[in-house]
Amino acid sequence: MTSGGDAAGMNPAVKAAVERARQLGMKPFVIYDGLEGLIDGKIKAATRDLTCEMSHRGGTLLRSSRSKRFFEYSYREQAYKHLKDNNIEHLVIAGGDGSFRALNDFFNDFQVPFAGIPATIDNDIAGTDYCLGVDTAQNIILNCIDTIRDTAQSHHRAFVIETMGRDCGYLAMTAAICSGADILVVPELPYDLESIKKRLQPQIEEGVGYVIAIVAEGTKKAQELTDWLSTNTGMDTRLTVLGHMQRGGAPSARDRLMGARFGTRAVEALHSGNINRIMVYHDGHHGECALDQVAGQKYHVSQSIIKLCEDMTR
Amino acid sequence: MTSGGDAAGMNPAVKAAVERARQLGMKPFVIYDGLEGLIDGKIKAATRDLTCEMSHRGGTLLRSSRSKRFFEYSYREQAYKHLKDNNIEHLVIAGGDGSFRALNDFFNDFQVPFAGIPATIDNDIAGTDYCLGVDTAQNIILNCIDTIRDTAQSHHRAFVIETMGRDCGYLAMTAAICSGADILVVPELPYDLESIKKRLQPQIEEGVGYVIAIVAEGTKKAQELTDWLSTNTGMDTRLTVLGHMQRGGAPSARDRLMGARFGTRAVEALHSGNINRIMVYHDGHHGECALDQVAGQKYHVSQSIIKLCEDMTR
Amino acid sequence: MTSGGDAAGMNPAVKAAVERARQLGMKPFVIYDGLEGLIDGKIKAATRDLTCEMSHRGGTLLRSSRSKRFFEYSYREQAYKHLKDNNIEHLVIAGGDGSFRALNDFFNDFQVPFAGIPATIDNDIAGTDYCLGVDTAQNIILNCIDTIRDTAQSHHRAFVIETMGRDCGYLAMTAAICSGADILVVPELPYDLESIKKRLQPQIEEGVGYVIAIVAEGTKKAQELTDWLSTNTGMDTRLTVLGHMQRGGAPSARDRLMGARFGTRAVEALHSGNINRIMVYHDGHHGECALDQVAGQKYHVSQSIIKLCEDMTR
Amino acid sequence: MTSGGDAAGMNPAVKAAVERARQLGMKPFVIYDGLEGLIDGKIKAATRDLTCEMSHRGGTLLRSSRSKRFFEYSYREQAYKHLKDNNIEHLVIAGGDGSFRALNDFFNDFQVPFAGIPATIDNDIAGTDYCLGVDTAQNIILNCIDTIRDTAQSHHRAFVIETMGRDCGYLAMTAAICSGADILVVPELPYDLESIKKRLQPQIEEGVGYVIAIVAEGTKKAQELTDWLSTNTGMDTRLTVLGHMQRGGAPSARDRLMGARFGTRAVEALHSGNINRIMVYHDGHHGECALDQVAGQKYHVSQSIIKLCEDMTR
Repeated sequence: MTSGGDAAGMNPAVKAAVERARQLGMKPFVIYDGLEGLIDGKIKAATRDLTCEMSHRGGTLLRSSRSKRFFEYSYREQAYKHLKDNNIEHLVIAGGDGSFRALNDFFNDFQVPFAGIPATIDNDIAGTDYCLGVDTAQNIILNCIDTIRDTAQSHHRAFVIETMGRDCGYLAMTAAICSGADILVVPELPYDLESIKKRLQPQIEEGVGYVIAIVAEGTKKAQELTDWLSTNTGMDTRLTVLGHMQRGGAPSARDRLMGARFGTRAVEALHSGNINRIMVYHDGHHGECALDQVAGQKYHVSQSIIKLCEDMTR
Repeated sequence: MTSGGDAAGMNPAVKAAVERARQLGMKPFVIYDGLEGLIDGKIKAATRDLTCEMSHRGGTLLRSSRSKRFFEYSYREQAYKHLKDNNIEHLVIAGGDGSFRALNDFFNDFQVPFAGIPATIDNDIAGTDYCLGVDTAQNIILNCIDTIRDTAQSHHRAFVIETMGRDCGYLAMTAAICSGADILVVPELPYDLESIKKRLQPQIEEGVGYVIAIVAEGTKKAQELTDWLSTNTGMDTRLTVLGHMQRGGAPSARDRLMGARFGTRAVEALHSGNINRIMVYHDGHHGECALDQVAGQKYHVSQSIIKLCEDMTR
Repeated sequence: MTSGGDAAGMNPAVKAAVERARQLGMKPFVIYDGLEGLIDGKIKAATRDLTCEMSHRGGTLLRSSRSKRFFEYSYREQAYKHLKDNNIEHLVIAGGDGSFRALNDFFNDFQVPFAGIPATIDNDIAGTDYCLGVDTAQNIILNCIDTIRDTAQSHHRAFVIETMGRDCGYLAMTAAICSGADILVVPELPYDLESIKKRLQPQIEEGVGYVIAIVAEGTKKAQELTDWLSTNTGMDTRLTVLGHMQRGGAPSARDRLMGARFGTRAVEALHSGNINRIMVYHDGHHGECALDQVAGQKYHVSQSIIKLCEDMTR
Repeated sequence: MTSGGDAAGMNPAVKAAVERARQLGMKPFVIYDGLEGLIDGKIKAATRDLTCEMSHRGGTLLRSSRSKRFFEYSYREQAYKHLKDNNIEHLVIAGGDGSFRALNDFFNDFQVPFAGIPATIDNDIAGTDYCLGVDTAQNIILNCIDTIRDTAQSHHRAFVIETMGRDCGYLAMTAAICSGADILVVPELPYDLESIKKRLQPQIEEGVGYVIAIVAEGTKKAQELTDWLSTNTGMDTRLTVLGHMQRGGAPSARDRLMGARFGTRAVEALHSGNINRIMVYHDGHHGECALDQVAGQKYHVSQSIIKLCEDMTR
């Protein structure tokens, strides 16, 4: 099942998990609509034609949800009943740390072991260097910036572009590095408008060039920066909030490959008795770790990425 | 030169005009920054390497502007001086009807003949069925909607998507037809929320499906419809304003082909003494028309397009 | 049903036809695998969830075929039986002129009226200025050329690129115009290698630049030109046959809009008793024409397109 | 400078190197046309407007070459003279191991230290887990396969798709995993046609489905497999050689980010006296290694990737 915000790469992960389960002699099912669907028994045997088209589709074909009901024991009991009726003995879930914690509580109640696959475009799960959906989101963001740049150049304009990422500036930082942005505002770094102004002064005075500023949504500074740029540079300044375009789209090669590897490994872990583990990608290798190394921990963007960003904040 | 809002297809049009001029034994120049650049003498001989990379680039490499100064005689006089200094005897301009009128005034002052190429993603120029930039914008909008649909489906959500087009609903209408939208709000058509509600009722009650609503910016109804959907369908509803992403991007095949044909014809018209004409595409053929058939007239979306849209407004 | 080579825009056309039929109180069915499927009775009632995802998918979800069996009366009789069993009284077919003729023969046998929708990336159907799939194919071809150009520029190389189109050079011609190609070889135009050599001489001698040559598959000259370029320019020359990439891909905005309009009109024509007509787009307007104006006629590329191409052939 | 086959990510690497050099107080130059250009003195000071548009362009704007002349001492001497004339004291080169070895020889002659950045879509350089260009190539290949799949599905066809990669099957393997291919032929793995035939039998007999086979160019088996499929499955089978489309295209997010990090680090290494090192990405971290760990070594695809591929070869 998939849970929480949809992320490209969820479909390839489901496909790989189903296929590996079949190879290992298990009988795979899919659960629709995440934990909500589990409560309501939206469960189907995973047929071949269900998964064969999955590798190249965006979002999650199993659909997803955020479930409040699952916090209540009575609904979890109902969910367990559906699993028992279908003889389902293991769960694989792709989602964020909230989803993993929910299944951990569920395990404590009913001893149904699970495996977790990190999937969120925010890339904010501790313990893993990669979450499904991030690479696709980065590519979509860059396409958007490249497109906006055409207009910025055509008119000597300034553009402020707000990216997703909740409290994590990873998407904004990598977008800024990859697009050669002029200004970056993220939760992880202070920024100094006076110094930015001084830096941009020469190109503004010449009346040439344009300005691209990337702002992480978590800072809530997009409108403020737009106003500041308009006032302080005299340039025609526009704000574009990228919004939900960042989530969907056909998964990139990396998200498909990562999805295939996470999905395969999740099933193998459960099959070998290695239960309640979160699949991670760390130091260039796939591995597993315990829930408490993932959930509730704060994710930190790597120092080398941050270092590449500093010049854009001052 | 290019003028007004940037539109994909301007570069191919410039390239074609320059090459045709050369073939006809003229000496082509390019003017940067539109009418502002004309006033400031930003004029260069059009070399081969300047245009050879133009066919596949978005925006306008000659850059553009909206010029208030050009309304004053003294600045127009200055502009004329620059043309004279360079022995430039004809002007080709890609832009909207405001730009054409400006060059017409200029002709009345200084007898420099011009040819106009309609270029605006709003597709709101009377007398021509096609303006450069429209096809590229339509394709970008559809890509965005396809991407957002992935998330809408994954979560049973409603999405309201605002498209550009100023007072003209053409982009919104074609986007709605092409994406199979559920709701459409444009300046050209009334809409009936009660009837829309009744129509969507079945799929909402089943708890399946998702809703895509397209709103033209000219109606200023995007936020209102978002609130209404949230209240009346109980669905998690999000608003996405596509913004400037719609403008740029590599020109589509159609915009390149149309750009090539408009650009070629503009130079041929001037060369054969057919001056102060606007290039148009009408009833499947390229032609030319007088300024007063274009400027100040209201553009009307074809009835057959409107008819295909009616079911989405009620 | 869809028949012959697959073309982007077939899915949107099917969707529009089904929806319009429903609005007019008809009961729509879909036939899978084209005429082969009709013989074998692969017929299903067209449900809402079947068509709701159709607008943005490439190829044809109803699948297609080329049927030899349909030439035999006994198989056509079998096909008719399936239609009768399902109370199907009208047929809508998207495909080429061969498919239209087949249904015309079928009408002569069993009086089942049909409507034809022109769909082929070759754009070689007489009587209509547009066939579904062409615009998508043009955009894919241009993306490929833009990508190959990156390598050509990086290495001062010559690239010969073969496009589809059977005996018709339309795709090759528009690709050459839109990409600013140096050389073009199509069935419709003679070409003069000596004069081409003279034209390219300066840029080859300077050792700068690169060469892009477009060859229509119908000429079978791709390998020959590759060898000639290698020998006569001394440039490292590569041949790329674009092949089946040109067929598929999500339909472009234009193919979706055209598909919607052709599909809607086909059903309306049948509904109003206007039977055995081919939907056409001519002089900027949608209309219908009789089979004999379409089938067996030779399609001619417009003179204005040909004129834009001449300089690339000499 | 960039050398050898062009790869997406070269431009972002050059941009990052130039900018970091400037920050460290060095005076950066660019050398056009690789080692050939070095011999011929095609050297320019790296101005700001040269690099500002580099991050999103495919191929290499500095162009590239394969140089035989550089093997001769007299030409290397000539190259050295150009460097001395420009007071260039360090070299940064993006390319393959042949290019690194060439600069190492050059160092032995003239003591000009260098830093190497691995860039080749073949991903076959030992000592680094990543080479610039690979991710972009993977994404282009997947787009092509997705497009071809539309046609394969529409017609129940088999498609054999040949990917680049010289003797290395990495691109073919990842393409096969990511696209859910049915058959894979690569240099690293044996394949068993009899067993493949048995595996595909059910879906072929049902007359449903389609077949996608991926073949690495290094095996030279594409035509053979095409013939085999045609004979043994009875399916209409087509071969598509992806060719040079795989090289170019705007760099993906990953190639831009990797390019930025490799380029920055290359300059920092030279600046801190860490000379003649190759930048590598290994176990999830950026580092440097000596030439002999890179050049002449054989690159091995990771076992976990190979394991995911085995089921497609039998």
